[in-house]
Amino acid sequence: MPRQQFQDLGFGTKAAEAQARLLNRDGSFNIRRKGLPFFESFSGYHYLISIPWWQFSLWILCSYIIINACFGGVYYLIGASSLSGIDGQTPFRQYIECFFFSTQTFTTVGFGRVAPVGDVANTISALESMTGLLSFALATGLLYGRFSRPVARILYSRHAVVAPYNGGDEEAKTGFMFRVANQRSNQLIEIEATLSLVWLENVGGRRVRQFHELEIERKSVKFFHLSWTVVHPIDPSSPLYGITKEQLDASEAEFLIILKAFDDTFSQTVYSRTSYKAHEVAFDHKFVGIIRTASDGITEIDLDKIHDHERV
Amino acid sequence: MPRQQFQDLGFGTKAAEAQARLLNRDGSFNIRRKGLPFFESFSGYHYLISIPWWQFSLWILCSYIIINACFGGVYYLIGASSLSGIDGQTPFRQYIECFFFSTQTFTTVGFGRVAPVGDVANTISALESMTGLLSFALATGLLYGRFSRPVARILYSRHAVVAPYNGGDEEAKTGFMFRVANQRSNQLIEIEATLSLVWLENVGGRRVRQFHELEIERKSVKFFHLSWTVVHPIDPSSPLYGITKEQLDASEAEFLIILKAFDDTFSQTVYSRTSYKAHEVAFDHKFVGIIRTASDGITEIDLDKIHDHERV
Amino acid sequence: MPRQQFQDLGFGTKAAEAQARLLNRDGSFNIRRKGLPFFESFSGYHYLISIPWWQFSLWILCSYIIINACFGGVYYLIGASSLSGIDGQTPFRQYIECFFFSTQTFTTVGFGRVAPVGDVANTISALESMTGLLSFALATGLLYGRFSRPVARILYSRHAVVAPYNGGDEEAKTGFMFRVANQRSNQLIEIEATLSLVWLENVGGRRVRQFHELEIERKSVKFFHLSWTVVHPIDPSSPLYGITKEQLDASEAEFLIILKAFDDTFSQTVYSRTSYKAHEVAFDHKFVGIIRTASDGITEIDLDKIHDHERV
Amino acid sequence: MPRQQFQDLGFGTKAAEAQARLLNRDGSFNIRRKGLPFFESFSGYHYLISIPWWQFSLWILCSYIIINACFGGVYYLIGASSLSGIDGQTPFRQYIECFFFSTQTFTTVGFGRVAPVGDVANTISALESMTGLLSFALATGLLYGRFSRPVARILYSRHAVVAPYNGGDEEAKTGFMFRVANQRSNQLIEIEATLSLVWLENVGGRRVRQFHELEIERKSVKFFHLSWTVVHPIDPSSPLYGITKEQLDASEAEFLIILKAFDDTFSQTVYSRTSYKAHEVAFDHKFVGIIRTASDGITEIDLDKIHDHERV
Repeated sequence: MPRQQFQDLGFGTKAAEAQARLLNRDGSFNIRRKGLPFFESFSGYHYLISIPWWQFSLWILCSYIIINACFGGVYYLIGASSLSGIDGQTPFRQYIECFFFSTQTFTTVGFGRVAPVGDVANTISALESMTGLLSFALATGLLYGRFSRPVARILYSRHAVVAPYNGGDEEAKTGFMFRVANQRSNQLIEIEATLSLVWLENVGGRRVRQFHELEIERKSVKFFHLSWTVVHPIDPSSPLYGITKEQLDASEAEFLIILKAFDDTFSQTVYSRTSYKAHEVAFDHKFVGIIRTASDGITEIDLDKIHDHERV
Repeated sequence: MPRQQFQDLGFGTKAAEAQARLLNRDGSFNIRRKGLPFFESFSGYHYLISIPWWQFSLWILCSYIIINACFGGVYYLIGASSLSGIDGQTPFRQYIECFFFSTQTFTTVGFGRVAPVGDVANTISALESMTGLLSFALATGLLYGRFSRPVARILYSRHAVVAPYNGGDEEAKTGFMFRVANQRSNQLIEIEATLSLVWLENVGGRRVRQFHELEIERKSVKFFHLSWTVVHPIDPSSPLYGITKEQLDASEAEFLIILKAFDDTFSQTVYSRTSYKAHEVAFDHKFVGIIRTASDGITEIDLDKIHDHERV
Repeated sequence: MPRQQFQDLGFGTKAAEAQARLLNRDGSFNIRRKGLPFFESFSGYHYLISIPWWQFSLWILCSYIIINACFGGVYYLIGASSLSGIDGQTPFRQYIECFFFSTQTFTTVGFGRVAPVGDVANTISALESMTGLLSFALATGLLYGRFSRPVARILYSRHAVVAPYNGGDEEAKTGFMFRVANQRSNQLIEIEATLSLVWLENVGGRRVRQFHELEIERKSVKFFHLSWTVVHPIDPSSPLYGITKEQLDASEAEFLIILKAFDDTFSQTVYSRTSYKAHEVAFDHKFVGIIRTASDGITEIDLDKIHDHERV
Repeated sequence: MPRQQFQDLGFGTKAAEAQARLLNRDGSFNIRRKGLPFFESFSGYHYLISIPWWQFSLWILCSYIIINACFGGVYYLIGASSLSGIDGQTPFRQYIECFFFSTQTFTTVGFGRVAPVGDVANTISALESMTGLLSFALATGLLYGRFSRPVARILYSRHAVVAPYNGGDEEAKTGFMFRVANQRSNQLIEIEATLSLVWLENVGGRRVRQFHELEIERKSVKFFHLSWTVVHPIDPSSPLYGITKEQLDASEAEFLIILKAFDDTFSQTVYSRTSYKAHEVAFDHKFVGIIRTASDGITEIDLDKIHDHERV
């Protein structure tokens, strides 16, 4: 029963009424979550791990400047005389020198040309160097976390195709297919695919959104060093049987895809998601071959052409 | 056999006699463990990873002060003359300066205004800077461990409800239900639920605590981006069949819940637990819908109302 | 077939001839591995993660002293005049000052009282501070690795017992039992046990070592917050059926145990192993109850008495 | 159907036409990937984690020199007068001193003999010490990542053999066998093996490459402390039944092997791969025994002889 299966995927029955795409091409959900206080839903680690590199660098740099501006201000307020080696004549010059002393303390570089003399300045600088070490530790952890996070960079063919294919036996079959490859040079092992379809169907005169899990000919492959063409055979048991391009477009169909794999470098399980909307499915097209045997007998794959398909 | 299943959950038959709740709302066990020497049962890492942030900060700060007070004391005992740049006239002032020199060594900031001159002072400061680096490393590891630990922050509805529901076919059914959502914005995948009931039953005239595993209509969902209403159908095979609110209260029933999921950000499996006591179950109430399609066609969930239920 | 199963456990048929214990009480293998060059079989990380704390500290301290003794020697050879602030008159005093300068560079504390002036000294100190940072980083990683490694600290009862037990129905049964508990306060989830027996049997007149996998009444429990008594029922299908204490001793029996669990704090799977030899099995003894309901209705476990058993 | 199974392994049907080995002895794929822009396929972390130690050290050292050469250049351009303590008379001498000041800032050793005085120099050195901390943090992470990465170092026997073996019952059997052992002293648990054959077969008059999954007598073993001889029984259902050494050579056969295990030290799943080509299979040879019981009753394995086999 479609409705049941729709819930199996974790979308409520209500979500079936959405007109917009459920899953974006990049695998993120096209769903709004409201009503949670910001701080409860916010996971700082998750945020800082996921933002682009330039944003992350900016965060680090700004935090560094702000923290030192504050500590510099504190030293200035204590009185610049509590730091030996301050030469500045104007308050502004003195603040600047306090700021730089703060950076030297925060990073523990501690040149010593400027150094704390009074008890208060010494106490602040003791706290600041401790804070500095811990802050950099955290920045470091985040930096390394970003760098080393296992992320499956799966290359999905831009379009899915519907075309005849050779299922191994001589009988001709038609299939819904898309092609995937590993964009990175690390090894992915034991890749599994799940393919689901959500579209509008006539149920009792009304057009309601329905869900189908689509059979895949080979749910998993051991290695993923070449490309993999995932095939859903369009046989009489498939909801796509006899469907034309026009019908598919009219049904607002969306194909939801989940890939699961084991990353050999990180020894961890990784997931990847994407979806194809009806207009991203090419009928009577087939993928251009990208695997060939080179003249030296070695198998070769040309990932440049992974998106290429041609009329049958 | 209830008794067997009770043991399957890992509670001995003796635990069946407890009158108190077995599992607290926050998922911790309401069980006392005695008889283990403190140091054998204590896992420092586990402790420092789990305490609240303010306690953790206090630990770090106190350790920092104590360590430097000790090292400062050692420098003072060696004789402040073994440090160049000490200006203090009274013993107390000298100790304070030794203390601050210690912080500068421990954090490796090493301004150099005060510096070790004798062999003993040099040896102590060589050891202290080494200790400092290792200690901060440890603090750092803990800090990062706290920050990056995969924790499932599951939002459980405050009450469970017993109400009719639409099981997909047109026939009316009654179910025991509770609602869960992901409080964080990270992705949880392949969520599985287990629901158990422990209550008092009449067995051979005596009221003894018995255990039942309750069937769930859909034991797992693929995605967990919206909310999920976990449903136990109260059909003739359910021990809850025909039970009234009064009977449930009298039986001191406790519903034990385990959720298991895969965290996409951390690539790790996470668990969450909770329980509902009889008085936290609302009869003839149903959950208020929180998923709707916004005017722009996008599915929307309002987590503010996750606890809301209304009379049927 | 016993021989097959013996191989299933990963011991060759040859290992069946050993007279010594296969598995020690602490779970390590009583097997010698020869013929591998030291460096190929040696995993530095594994070694430094597993040695006791005092050995690890000694390693760190010795490495620290040796590295600084070497760098100190290099500075001395360059000529102590290439360091400003060296006061020593004798070669030995100068070497000592070079050594301390080296520690200040290696830990990056850099007081600056002694500082490099020549190009060679500057180059060496640039390399040393880099080496220092990387070395401490490594020490740090190891320190944290040791601290945070998920280790199942399972408390096994000192003896296994053979005794009647109540299997849930009223019929009396005899079982081979041992009791386990979690020594740490962290949560272990989904604990699974495997129990195997290896002993001497008469096969065609010869006494040969044979292997049996023993059935366990409940192969896994969900939670492991209390103790768990693992029971192998000695029914007619068990190789232990009708065996006396004397026969068991004569057979040189060894019971091999593997526990597998999921650690909730570390989100990782952990294993624990142990074995009981025939003389560690108490016949006609049963374990003393250690779980009780306290006066406030809360379940209580007394781990002090986990090893306690008494004559039936 | 072989073709299907060939795809199950993740090699396309096209790869079946390759004449070269598919998998190298060290487990890497003998496949060329083209057409991806360097930066998209490149995973810096993966690269720096996998290169040999000498290359990694060179990377670190060169980066260190280049970064300091740049920062040194910046200080020189600002004007060496903005650094106190610069004594150099010639531009070259001044640049060298700037370079060394840069190393002292970058590593945060900060001796202070040379120290920034002007605002620009102070700003640059504030940025440099921050960059230094983050860079070393990254280098550190990589260093530790390399050191602690769970890698299964499986020792495969140099040759596979085809020989009679004792399958437990008295009837003689012939098997395809290879022998594996753990090269490291860490524990591998629950080892699973998969064995596949790819060779040329006559199909409809043409010689086409075909794939077969070969049955293994014991797909997994619990422990892996001794060696494990993986056996494929050559019975009538095996494609190797009745095949001679000459036929195997002519078929260009390649045996693909995948081992999967759980690493007890790292609590992670690890994989190992290798392959045997036809010329690496010794017919009518059997492996020399390497497990024996020493005079003290302890089982002993001699890994020196793991490759040794002798004529039957």
